[in-house]
Amino acid sequence: MHMTKVRAAVAGASGYAGGEVLRLLLAHPDVEIGALTGGSNAGQPLGALQPHLTPLAGRVLQETTIENLSGHDVVFLALPHGQSGAVAAQLGDDVVVVDCGADFRLEDAGEWEHFYGSDHAGTWPYGLPELPGQREVLAGTKRVAVPGCYPTVSTLTLAPAVAAGIVEPDVVVVAASGTSGAGKAAKPHLLGSEIMGNLSAYGVGGTHRHTPEITQNLSKMIDGEVKVSFTPVLAPTPRGILATCSAPLKPGVTAEEARAVYEKYYGDEPFIRLLPEGQWPQTKSVIGSNAVHVQVTVDERAGRLVAVGVVDNLAKGTGGAAVQCMNLALGLEETTGLTAVGLAP
Amino acid sequence: MHMTKVRAAVAGASGYAGGEVLRLLLAHPDVEIGALTGGSNAGQPLGALQPHLTPLAGRVLQETTIENLSGHDVVFLALPHGQSGAVAAQLGDDVVVVDCGADFRLEDAGEWEHFYGSDHAGTWPYGLPELPGQREVLAGTKRVAVPGCYPTVSTLTLAPAVAAGIVEPDVVVVAASGTSGAGKAAKPHLLGSEIMGNLSAYGVGGTHRHTPEITQNLSKMIDGEVKVSFTPVLAPTPRGILATCSAPLKPGVTAEEARAVYEKYYGDEPFIRLLPEGQWPQTKSVIGSNAVHVQVTVDERAGRLVAVGVVDNLAKGTGGAAVQCMNLALGLEETTGLTAVGLAP
Amino acid sequence: MHMTKVRAAVAGASGYAGGEVLRLLLAHPDVEIGALTGGSNAGQPLGALQPHLTPLAGRVLQETTIENLSGHDVVFLALPHGQSGAVAAQLGDDVVVVDCGADFRLEDAGEWEHFYGSDHAGTWPYGLPELPGQREVLAGTKRVAVPGCYPTVSTLTLAPAVAAGIVEPDVVVVAASGTSGAGKAAKPHLLGSEIMGNLSAYGVGGTHRHTPEITQNLSKMIDGEVKVSFTPVLAPTPRGILATCSAPLKPGVTAEEARAVYEKYYGDEPFIRLLPEGQWPQTKSVIGSNAVHVQVTVDERAGRLVAVGVVDNLAKGTGGAAVQCMNLALGLEETTGLTAVGLAP
Amino acid sequence: MHMTKVRAAVAGASGYAGGEVLRLLLAHPDVEIGALTGGSNAGQPLGALQPHLTPLAGRVLQETTIENLSGHDVVFLALPHGQSGAVAAQLGDDVVVVDCGADFRLEDAGEWEHFYGSDHAGTWPYGLPELPGQREVLAGTKRVAVPGCYPTVSTLTLAPAVAAGIVEPDVVVVAASGTSGAGKAAKPHLLGSEIMGNLSAYGVGGTHRHTPEITQNLSKMIDGEVKVSFTPVLAPTPRGILATCSAPLKPGVTAEEARAVYEKYYGDEPFIRLLPEGQWPQTKSVIGSNAVHVQVTVDERAGRLVAVGVVDNLAKGTGGAAVQCMNLALGLEETTGLTAVGLAP
Repeated sequence: MHMTKVRAAVAGASGYAGGEVLRLLLAHPDVEIGALTGGSNAGQPLGALQPHLTPLAGRVLQETTIENLSGHDVVFLALPHGQSGAVAAQLGDDVVVVDCGADFRLEDAGEWEHFYGSDHAGTWPYGLPELPGQREVLAGTKRVAVPGCYPTVSTLTLAPAVAAGIVEPDVVVVAASGTSGAGKAAKPHLLGSEIMGNLSAYGVGGTHRHTPEITQNLSKMIDGEVKVSFTPVLAPTPRGILATCSAPLKPGVTAEEARAVYEKYYGDEPFIRLLPEGQWPQTKSVIGSNAVHVQVTVDERAGRLVAVGVVDNLAKGTGGAAVQCMNLALGLEETTGLTAVGLAP
Repeated sequence: MHMTKVRAAVAGASGYAGGEVLRLLLAHPDVEIGALTGGSNAGQPLGALQPHLTPLAGRVLQETTIENLSGHDVVFLALPHGQSGAVAAQLGDDVVVVDCGADFRLEDAGEWEHFYGSDHAGTWPYGLPELPGQREVLAGTKRVAVPGCYPTVSTLTLAPAVAAGIVEPDVVVVAASGTSGAGKAAKPHLLGSEIMGNLSAYGVGGTHRHTPEITQNLSKMIDGEVKVSFTPVLAPTPRGILATCSAPLKPGVTAEEARAVYEKYYGDEPFIRLLPEGQWPQTKSVIGSNAVHVQVTVDERAGRLVAVGVVDNLAKGTGGAAVQCMNLALGLEETTGLTAVGLAP
Repeated sequence: MHMTKVRAAVAGASGYAGGEVLRLLLAHPDVEIGALTGGSNAGQPLGALQPHLTPLAGRVLQETTIENLSGHDVVFLALPHGQSGAVAAQLGDDVVVVDCGADFRLEDAGEWEHFYGSDHAGTWPYGLPELPGQREVLAGTKRVAVPGCYPTVSTLTLAPAVAAGIVEPDVVVVAASGTSGAGKAAKPHLLGSEIMGNLSAYGVGGTHRHTPEITQNLSKMIDGEVKVSFTPVLAPTPRGILATCSAPLKPGVTAEEARAVYEKYYGDEPFIRLLPEGQWPQTKSVIGSNAVHVQVTVDERAGRLVAVGVVDNLAKGTGGAAVQCMNLALGLEETTGLTAVGLAP
Repeated sequence: MHMTKVRAAVAGASGYAGGEVLRLLLAHPDVEIGALTGGSNAGQPLGALQPHLTPLAGRVLQETTIENLSGHDVVFLALPHGQSGAVAAQLGDDVVVVDCGADFRLEDAGEWEHFYGSDHAGTWPYGLPELPGQREVLAGTKRVAVPGCYPTVSTLTLAPAVAAGIVEPDVVVVAASGTSGAGKAAKPHLLGSEIMGNLSAYGVGGTHRHTPEITQNLSKMIDGEVKVSFTPVLAPTPRGILATCSAPLKPGVTAEEARAVYEKYYGDEPFIRLLPEGQWPQTKSVIGSNAVHVQVTVDERAGRLVAVGVVDNLAKGTGGAAVQCMNLALGLEETTGLTAVGLAP
């Protein structure tokens, strides 16, 4: 098939999310990479900031202005929280805007204000095509709010059980994450010397900003609100999240029944794989890929369903979802330019 | 004070537990290191197997026989599961035997058989002096069952809340651990190439052997049995466990009250530190040390108490507890030769 | 262009080299993956052994027999040293055989016997297309000896200087490598617990088997033999080699002249990038990719040229070179299915 | 022996060097820890900045003023380059001042100005007691310049060969280091996300500031100047340096002779261990300790002596040397409070 390539710009090309979008776009057969913009890094060659993007090494970052971002079919926003709304408003309704930030994820303005401490910008179609009906919502859309990394894996790991009503709506998620989710801004506690050999808890007690997003996703699946206890753990690896999720099991549900629920729910999803019985997920299997690996079991003594899911926080957890949603928005094959093959070892 | 040094033997000196006991004994002012024995490594110099124990580099491992272990005041057993009973029986009742393995930890023979698949060897005094009344049990004892690493941190992190009855007896523990807990036997999934950059779940659904030990410890604190959902996660670091623990909060309990419960419970424990409000534990703070750092909060929305604890699985989680209990058994000052100072960064 | 896909088999699909070949073939538009064989792992599903190769998870490993490997256009051998010759002999002269092992790399039988302690199997076209004239040798060949990982990066980093005669033929290479180069066989010193937080030297004093291969490559560029002092260092990362190379500078050569030599030598190579002045290579920029990043400078005081190169030992250092050479052997575009984009962070 | 404890202050207690000095002083039986000062961190509790120093968690950092540092027997300076001179001048000649910074290491003012770009502060007794005659220089001194981490291990690894004249004075040092040597100031390229899985070269071509210090040390051992080619490599581990050192061998020197030279040179040094033949150093063996492990061999084909040494850059490479020198300066037993036992795994 011969077609004109889609022209894509990336705002925030020097950060981790922007870099990942570019890494994936470089492998996308239907995309031509247009403007690359940055904040304080404008004027620098990309090769000095993202040396792994070898083919783009000579490209120079422009300032993040509407002029520079104009004239593209799709614009990826990988900006600090709170900046996407103003940019999107000026880009016009005919441009596909994919926001990798949090600004348009939450539907409840009060929740946004509680967790982010600023005015709510609005709500865009939520970029998780694996949720019921969501693929249709995203087809042809001009605006996409890419989900947060923790919500992506937590939601996908729990959704089948919650939707089927085989658990009480009272879930516990403890998710160990690599450090790239914390971004590229230099902070002492994120130094390699601090991170290597270290495991640390943060955002404990429901204070992490991804908590209301998980709650929003899961609560849509039932009549009522799902209680979510979410604890993130920082782990010494650059990429990957492993989410250990559990909830009280409804009486009499067996491991086989739970497994059947998951099989049915995700049967033909291109990027979600329910592992064979007895095999548990590891993040390494999905690094660099758009795949999500999931496993589920039942702990009879504790009376809980326990499910574990893994995702690459930068790939399917951010940049991969962005590209997947772009494909849907533009009417391309959903999986184009994406892979379910991880980089291991 | 002038005293004759205690003469200590270590059976299983080539493994991680045995090596850690030796590392700590080398810093103990009242101990003289006697026989070092190994299994298939007998005949080799310790310097080839544990090159970090520089002062012992020239010592040659002997076979693990009663002859070689006789004539010591204390014998540390760091053997594979199931081997400690026979050795201990021949050592005589006047020798202090500290078992770093699992053989004598569980009180319920049925639980042992269910999780370990062999006959129950018996039950020895449980080497967690920080539990109520346990310090007294250990004083002057001739036998010690050193707790498992996960049970140590899980129990200490949850004990105050469970004992005070501020939570329902239905706890969820997700504990990320370094790899040394898996031992030194070479297995493909423990290779550095597999471990680095990887997070993986295992023993999910209550199948890990430390589950009944956590249950046993916590259930002693209430009238009834505590339900324990325990999931271990393998993390890319050699040492350290971070346990994220939670349970449904009894109605009306505030974060301040929860904190007061913890402060009171651990007020004067030499190795347990409740961190200042708002500071969350990280494993690196306790690496190489006998310290346990704990923090607790309340998640009002989720209706749960959330507590996080960290321990060095080889130090306070194994070898440090062994030395601490030896001190108690021999009537030495409990903290001798041990430190609450971690190695960081 | 419509074409029949090339049918490829991989012998040794459960190891790191075989897994990497498969990872790359899954992204190759012109290849269909045929038989996958293993040694002791025959009969197991690939998903249990290489869970990152999600699309092949259900494929079952066959035994490594001629029957199973027959009927393919290309066969990749990722076998232990010494096994490739017998297999290749039976595959027939019309099949492209790409050997990822060492058996056919060395030209001097005496060197082979000295370093490998067995009979020399022979010499196949050496799979480093970036060497002068080598691309032509590989075009249409039926046999390829994929270079060793250390020789690939050491040779490419030093070749321009040695060939131009701006250094004495007396080079020092110290190369820090990730652990995957040591393979997937479980050995205690390669356990994650041992590797993480550790740097260790091995094969010091010219005893590493890659030494004669580096010597062979560099000596072809001059009239005489290049003296090579090679020391590998094991570093705590799964992938990547950083080679620090130096040699006494011929009198009067400036940094600018050295740089010009490198620019000219590698000007239009698709996978080799001489970094901008002042930017030094890091392995992370090339992980997962076929790229080699190189930098060179002159240390006037020490009188030496110093050049640094990086490669992904499994990608361009093994599997990527294998696919690159397959492309040449089959008359496909050399870069098909390969990327110069690394996976970072 | 009953004695009044030495009272020690640490200026720069919030950084890595200051933290390591404190970690070691906490284990020193003859030292009482006095004032702790910091720059921008003054006013904060140490527990928030160095949570591993559990017993000092409640101590609050003071400002780095003469008033705060006065009244101590020994003052450790762990300050940014260029600040030690002014502080030391005001502390008085009767106080032992141990400078962990670079200010007083170099003897040649021109070299200082070339590499550091500021005025030379002077030269203090060099804190490497293992150099010939240096132990005597340090006994009773009131000023100590603690060596750099790279110079410590490079000098100790090469000194025997250079001093004995069995190599040409033309050495090549490639040293892979953990990240803590780069300090605790937050810089993007030192983030955990950048460091993990990465190997990178820096300061190539003789531009690293430790180059003239290595040259100074080695040149004292011969009649003339030793040419030093030094390349540091940043490796993904918090601590530890492995230095691979080589030099052209004088004709006819055998491996046995080289080994004998090293044995004689370091025969009774308490912290330096020449490993048994065939065993090569690894950093993990010396982490947290004051030990240096060294091995040497001869590469006959390449005509070079190759020696490898390891050190913990923060311990023997900084804080341990500081305490060792304090012991000498105060007339205490040199090894007091220090260990040759590393923390592994």
